[in-house]
Amino acid sequence: MRIITVSREFGSGGRELGKRLATELGWDYYDREIIAEIARKCSVSEDYAHYMLGQTFSSSAAITMGQSFHIPEVLQSTQIKLLREQTNVIKEIAARDRDCVIVGRNADLLLRDYNPLNIFVCADTASKIKRCAERSGKDENLSEKELLKNMKAIDKNRKNSREMISDSPWGDPKGYNLIINTSGVEIKKLIPSVAVFAKGWFESKDKD
Amino acid sequence: MRIITVSREFGSGGRELGKRLATELGWDYYDREIIAEIARKCSVSEDYAHYMLGQTFSSSAAITMGQSFHIPEVLQSTQIKLLREQTNVIKEIAARDRDCVIVGRNADLLLRDYNPLNIFVCADTASKIKRCAERSGKDENLSEKELLKNMKAIDKNRKNSREMISDSPWGDPKGYNLIINTSGVEIKKLIPSVAVFAKGWFESKDKD
Repeated sequence: MRIITVSREFGSGGRELGKRLATELGWDYYDREIIAEIARKCSVSEDYAHYMLGQTFSSSAAITMGQSFHIPEVLQSTQIKLLREQTNVIKEIAARDRDCVIVGRNADLLLRDYNPLNIFVCADTASKIKRCAERSGKDENLSEKELLKNMKAIDKNRKNSREMISDSPWGDPKGYNLIINTSGVEIKKLIPSVAVFAKGWFESKDKD
Repeated sequence: MRIITVSREFGSGGRELGKRLATELGWDYYDREIIAEIARKCSVSEDYAHYMLGQTFSSSAAITMGQSFHIPEVLQSTQIKLLREQTNVIKEIAARDRDCVIVGRNADLLLRDYNPLNIFVCADTASKIKRCAERSGKDENLSEKELLKNMKAIDKNRKNSREMISDSPWGDPKGYNLIINTSGVEIKKLIPSVAVFAKGWFESKDKD
């Protein structure tokens, strides 16, 4: 079984890359499906699970709620429960023993025993803003400033959630096998090459 | 014309990757040839040119020579002359208008107008030490401690020489198009996939 994990900066096109890569390879694909499964197991709504898993309450909730250095216990315990379930769900996916691509959720760390190909996707700020602007619906007309603020907040949560369970800094080349900078590149056109690279990578691994 | 530049950490196998990639693609390859050309043009030996271009005298010479904050003018002017010639030689290579792979020498920055595919090669410390130990001749029996010291010194010079002419930090994902971590990978086996990726990358570039 081969597992590819995709971590990414918000707006870099990492999810698109992961999804298209899975299609190109004909492998299983997991992203929001993980949230749905966690929500089902914990009897909460998907939106709630998504929100809670995207926050790092250790720092942000205290500020949001104006209670410095105090995070309500109910939030803490719910988040811990959801995080624990997330680990279970991701390990169950690996136990299915089928080639797959998993986007986000620190799957690279949780599945390190399976020696996945860990890809990180980044892009320069201008490309990310352009991509977000193209992607967002006509209803949400965010200014560039608001977009940048959201982008930073989401990436900060991703960084925190990684660094809570690992010494390997988020987005640092040493923590991944491949980093793709999507600036100036049409992801759709790049996919066949990424797929060839991925298959080649699994074959070129040291046997020791 | 397509240009691939390869920057790398010492011991990561970046030169091997660059050389094999050029062979696989059937493209021209430049590495030490650049030094030879500079040496010829400046009427110095290759070893001297190599040494002088590998140093960042702004900081290191002052310490080596025990003259704090003073670098002999003759060294400064020789190095500036060699660096200027290096820029010329690299631009002449690009002007040949042939597909090529160039290893090192900040070619990614010097040739940015040609939109090269800029690859950075890294690896974890254990892999780099293993690679260096395998590569070094039986004559030079360096201890692991000495090896690490050399490794750090060379990478520091590479970092300094980049950051003297660019705001983009050495090894930072945003400054390259692709980062390959060679830890646990047999480079020779990976090359066909890197070649496919490289060709695909040039075809997937935005036209705007």
